[in-house]
Amino acid sequence: MAVALKLYDLSGRDERLRFSPFCWRVRMALAHKGLEFTAVAWRFLDKQALEFADYDKVPVLCDGEQVVTDSFAIMRYLDKTYPESPVLGEGLSYQRVLLFKYFVERSVNPAIFRTIATDLLAAVHPDDRGYFRETREARFGCTLEEFQQPEQGKKQLHQVLAPVRDLLADSAFLDGDAPAGSDYLLFGSMMWAHVVSKQALVEPGDPVDKWFKRMLNVHDGAASQALTVRDI
Amino acid sequence: MAVALKLYDLSGRDERLRFSPFCWRVRMALAHKGLEFTAVAWRFLDKQALEFADYDKVPVLCDGEQVVTDSFAIMRYLDKTYPESPVLGEGLSYQRVLLFKYFVERSVNPAIFRTIATDLLAAVHPDDRGYFRETREARFGCTLEEFQQPEQGKKQLHQVLAPVRDLLADSAFLDGDAPAGSDYLLFGSMMWAHVVSKQALVEPGDPVDKWFKRMLNVHDGAASQALTVRDI
Repeated sequence: MAVALKLYDLSGRDERLRFSPFCWRVRMALAHKGLEFTAVAWRFLDKQALEFADYDKVPVLCDGEQVVTDSFAIMRYLDKTYPESPVLGEGLSYQRVLLFKYFVERSVNPAIFRTIATDLLAAVHPDDRGYFRETREARFGCTLEEFQQPEQGKKQLHQVLAPVRDLLADSAFLDGDAPAGSDYLLFGSMMWAHVVSKQALVEPGDPVDKWFKRMLNVHDGAASQALTVRDI
Repeated sequence: MAVALKLYDLSGRDERLRFSPFCWRVRMALAHKGLEFTAVAWRFLDKQALEFADYDKVPVLCDGEQVVTDSFAIMRYLDKTYPESPVLGEGLSYQRVLLFKYFVERSVNPAIFRTIATDLLAAVHPDDRGYFRETREARFGCTLEEFQQPEQGKKQLHQVLAPVRDLLADSAFLDGDAPAGSDYLLFGSMMWAHVVSKQALVEPGDPVDKWFKRMLNVHDGAASQALTVRDI
């Protein structure tokens, strides 16, 4: 019998809109392991639905009796529990992908947020928008409309991704000939924009754009089937 | 008998001033492997001295009959030839440290150069300064004096190093409990500034500063003995 995996996953104004970068990295890690799972739609204010996990954010993974919170901890859990074909790896590999996780969260995500802030607000469920605006504006110290500066955000992203572009000149994927953890971390963040925004984050033809399109097709096109704002 | 390793190493206005970030990463990799070597002082215009290597830059490593050029290729060569205690590693580890190399070269080094451009010029041998100025000014499209913006450079470096700072909150070294390739790549670039400039690149007390001081002491203080402009 297949293992019953359940992933609590952020949903938006259309329940089929799934755009959390942290949920996407886990979805890709699950696809990498060939694990089937049920995605449970969750919204920012459903704090009660996660009480069992003693946590207030998604992703949350339930693997039978096991409950795992935090996207990176889930990726690590998957490697420990389903060791074939590592996503993060151990030792030096693990330590280096942990640094890349911080790079994605500290340097990539802010540039993307600056590009798509109001697109994100529009993708969030109407009942969640007050919460979303309030928490993000407290973090940035300005309104979402002030924070949103797409040209500046894309320029910043272009600079931040220079090392990634260099790497992709000789590698099909960040982690080599096949995708693994580093790819899923960056891809998750780019799916965030891909799902909620009609803007192109990087120029067509950019090695990062070509890589993103390859990533849409890996694991039987797991991500290519995602509903985006272009579809609704 | 010990292997006769020889490293061609950039020297400055005082022959003992050794400040190339690319040479420093190799020096640390050699120390990591416990390999003794002779450092041969080289200057930018000594192109003839490297003809045997069919190369025009340092580091160049001679290991008996073997000649290896390019700092990262040398690190890889050391791993292949002296496999105990990997510096770069293989597979995922290698691919991830390759990405970090690009990060150091694309994002860290420009911020440091902006901070120490004229200090560097002063550290270079007087006979090499014309060459140094010409090649660097062609690269930047402005004079070294215009390019030098220490406050901006340090601010840029502070932002760029945010992911490194996060990692060091829980790790003694970038590569974990002990230093390895990632540490040597970043450390090499910071030694560049440490040797030629009296400016502090990062604030005292910053996790990156604490890590840098730890790095000065590893491998029997291999780097702590380096002559700096403070000493002459």
